[in-house]
Amino acid sequence: MSNIQKPKGTQDLLPGTVEKWHYVESKARDICNRFNYREVRTPIFEHTELFQRGVGETTDIVEKEMYTFLDKGDRSISLRPEGTAGVVRSYIENKLYAEPDVAKLFYIGPMFRYERPMAGRYRQFHQFGVEAIGSAEPSIDAEVIAMGYLLYKELGLKEVTVEINSVGNASVRAVYRDKLRAFLQPLLPSLCKDCQSRYDRNPLRVLDCKVDQDKFGGAPSILDSLDDECRNHFDAVKAHLDDMGIPYVVNSRLVRGLDYYTHTAFEYKAAGIGAIDTIGGGGRYNGLVADIGGDDRPGVGFGLGLERVLLVLEAQGVELPGAAPVDVYFIGLGEAAERRVAALAYEARAAGLKAEMDYLGRKMKAQLKAADRLAARYAAILGDDELARGEITLKNMATGEQSLVALDRLIGILKAGS
Amino acid sequence: MSNIQKPKGTQDLLPGTVEKWHYVESKARDICNRFNYREVRTPIFEHTELFQRGVGETTDIVEKEMYTFLDKGDRSISLRPEGTAGVVRSYIENKLYAEPDVAKLFYIGPMFRYERPMAGRYRQFHQFGVEAIGSAEPSIDAEVIAMGYLLYKELGLKEVTVEINSVGNASVRAVYRDKLRAFLQPLLPSLCKDCQSRYDRNPLRVLDCKVDQDKFGGAPSILDSLDDECRNHFDAVKAHLDDMGIPYVVNSRLVRGLDYYTHTAFEYKAAGIGAIDTIGGGGRYNGLVADIGGDDRPGVGFGLGLERVLLVLEAQGVELPGAAPVDVYFIGLGEAAERRVAALAYEARAAGLKAEMDYLGRKMKAQLKAADRLAARYAAILGDDELARGEITLKNMATGEQSLVALDRLIGILKAGS
Repeated sequence: MSNIQKPKGTQDLLPGTVEKWHYVESKARDICNRFNYREVRTPIFEHTELFQRGVGETTDIVEKEMYTFLDKGDRSISLRPEGTAGVVRSYIENKLYAEPDVAKLFYIGPMFRYERPMAGRYRQFHQFGVEAIGSAEPSIDAEVIAMGYLLYKELGLKEVTVEINSVGNASVRAVYRDKLRAFLQPLLPSLCKDCQSRYDRNPLRVLDCKVDQDKFGGAPSILDSLDDECRNHFDAVKAHLDDMGIPYVVNSRLVRGLDYYTHTAFEYKAAGIGAIDTIGGGGRYNGLVADIGGDDRPGVGFGLGLERVLLVLEAQGVELPGAAPVDVYFIGLGEAAERRVAALAYEARAAGLKAEMDYLGRKMKAQLKAADRLAARYAAILGDDELARGEITLKNMATGEQSLVALDRLIGILKAGS
Repeated sequence: MSNIQKPKGTQDLLPGTVEKWHYVESKARDICNRFNYREVRTPIFEHTELFQRGVGETTDIVEKEMYTFLDKGDRSISLRPEGTAGVVRSYIENKLYAEPDVAKLFYIGPMFRYERPMAGRYRQFHQFGVEAIGSAEPSIDAEVIAMGYLLYKELGLKEVTVEINSVGNASVRAVYRDKLRAFLQPLLPSLCKDCQSRYDRNPLRVLDCKVDQDKFGGAPSILDSLDDECRNHFDAVKAHLDDMGIPYVVNSRLVRGLDYYTHTAFEYKAAGIGAIDTIGGGGRYNGLVADIGGDDRPGVGFGLGLERVLLVLEAQGVELPGAAPVDVYFIGLGEAAERRVAALAYEARAAGLKAEMDYLGRKMKAQLKAADRLAARYAAILGDDELARGEITLKNMATGEQSLVALDRLIGILKAGS
């Protein structure tokens, strides 16, 4: 019978790798706790309409990349391609807006996009993100930016830079869009196909184009179009970042892929494999809650891809912790001793120790090798003779030192030494 | 614009509830670490064929309950309805059988079945399970059984009982199936429709029937059909459980829903809402690795539903920890003080403290109320005057005691007191 393989573009995370994920995830959770962001878990799939409204019907994600299907009740559902829409839907449906405090939420988990798989890009990938919904204050834009920065720093990423911009509000963007089209119009015949299509639909995203980047040197800056409200907000965000000592650069070309951003937009970049690479980003989205069907509430958030962060950590040679070492490896020699060793292992585990034993009837030498592979601190070796005397040999695996200890004192000694 | 709601049969896990999940999950991870089981994360969806082979083409799960669809590459894929098939596929595909030690793996995450939603039953639900693949030793059956028992005990579940049985090997079951059909045949016209259909397909499962239970008093016991190998294995599992002090009862009717079990089958039961209820279970599956396309390797595992466990914990009145309290809530009074407070909050968080502040321009009284809601240990209150003097008021929220401290000593004082 032939093997079945994992679906194309998906991964198995195995022991040895999964511990690196645990490290990154627990650091993200720890930072969220300190900043008082609490987890929300939304379903893996949602009604397709949510993403049409919350991500945008004309985006590549919704047009081309979603896993969309009819369930057995003939509802169109889609595996979530990103995290924000579900969190905002949950905020509305569960009436979190009625709580007295700002909703400070985070999510972490799998997302799905049917894209061409390539190095570091998967059809099932994993994102961590935070969403603060209910405040329009610039202090919370700065908090969200600082939070991501601190996470990268504490993970050990080197040379992380923060780029920020203001994309204004809807009326600012309407004015700027006209100015930008006027600038782009004479260039249009020389631009790539993507740029030509974006010129009509969303000219701000033309400035993101990697191909035609060098043609946009003289493009007008959106920052010159900001009205007083937008400028004040942006200045206050920058002042807060200065106060917190978060280094940043203003990049007036930064518009992000999603149309729902207002005011603050930001990205984190790090020196990765060769090129400087975006490792996360976000912004303020004051219209999104209403787009999804709720009352008008301002929000701000960021998201980052865990695969990408792990790739850059590896490329930068940052060492991440592996599995915890085993406290004690039990070896039984003889029938009665083997049976007793299984009970001792359970006793050690119930007492809080990490314990391992053999399940393959291997010889002592092979068992000691297994103990070495697990970086065991001690081997506890029991023969039938020792068992009869109520004793066991405890071997310190680092020094090789051995001692006989009373069986009923063993767990206490190991607990004291672990 | 109308609201979009979560898909039928799914849940949002919100702050206040999600912390209970964290508690159960971290206890499960802690137990796995002590028993040296390591996490494997397989994709949320797999090729449909995997579940046809690994769960069984004629099971209700695969016949009626899977979320199956064609992806954009016209492959039939299914959201995973359970965890074992993916782990075994991953074991084969990643050649874990070539490792020198037994593969001791666990999984935790969402599963999907299109069932009629009812109290405690969801279309997206969550399972934790362990799989030990590569050893046929009875000690590892006992270890797996003990591990689940210890988890329930440490979670605080009361009155957990373990039921065990041996379902023998394939030849034992063939003999027993004939004996059982002979017993059932005269009863057949009086049995329910499910039983009649199971009589042909899988008569062992007839004994599971809740409707006709009282008619099976005189049914032959599979334990009387065990051959020497099967009996020795079962006796050894029981001896190990005795050695470890794990209480259990033998239930010769226990066959579990899945056809792949061999030798050991077991279930955990607890007093829940009214009735005694199954809260988890598992067994040995010596044929499954080969069924999925690998070499013949023995395995044993258990799985449990997290929704079910949380439901029983709640029904039993077990208190689970909530969110950690906030160390310090910062209150700024005046423009300069407000700005400084945002930087102080960041400084506190970067120093490892859990800190919160206001983002809504609320008055001091409302901010103190917010601090109370978060069970903050301290409020740190800064006015423009104090800021000018380089001081801040620290209020102990439990005692109401207030003191003025130097701004540059604040974080140190809070760290010492947290």
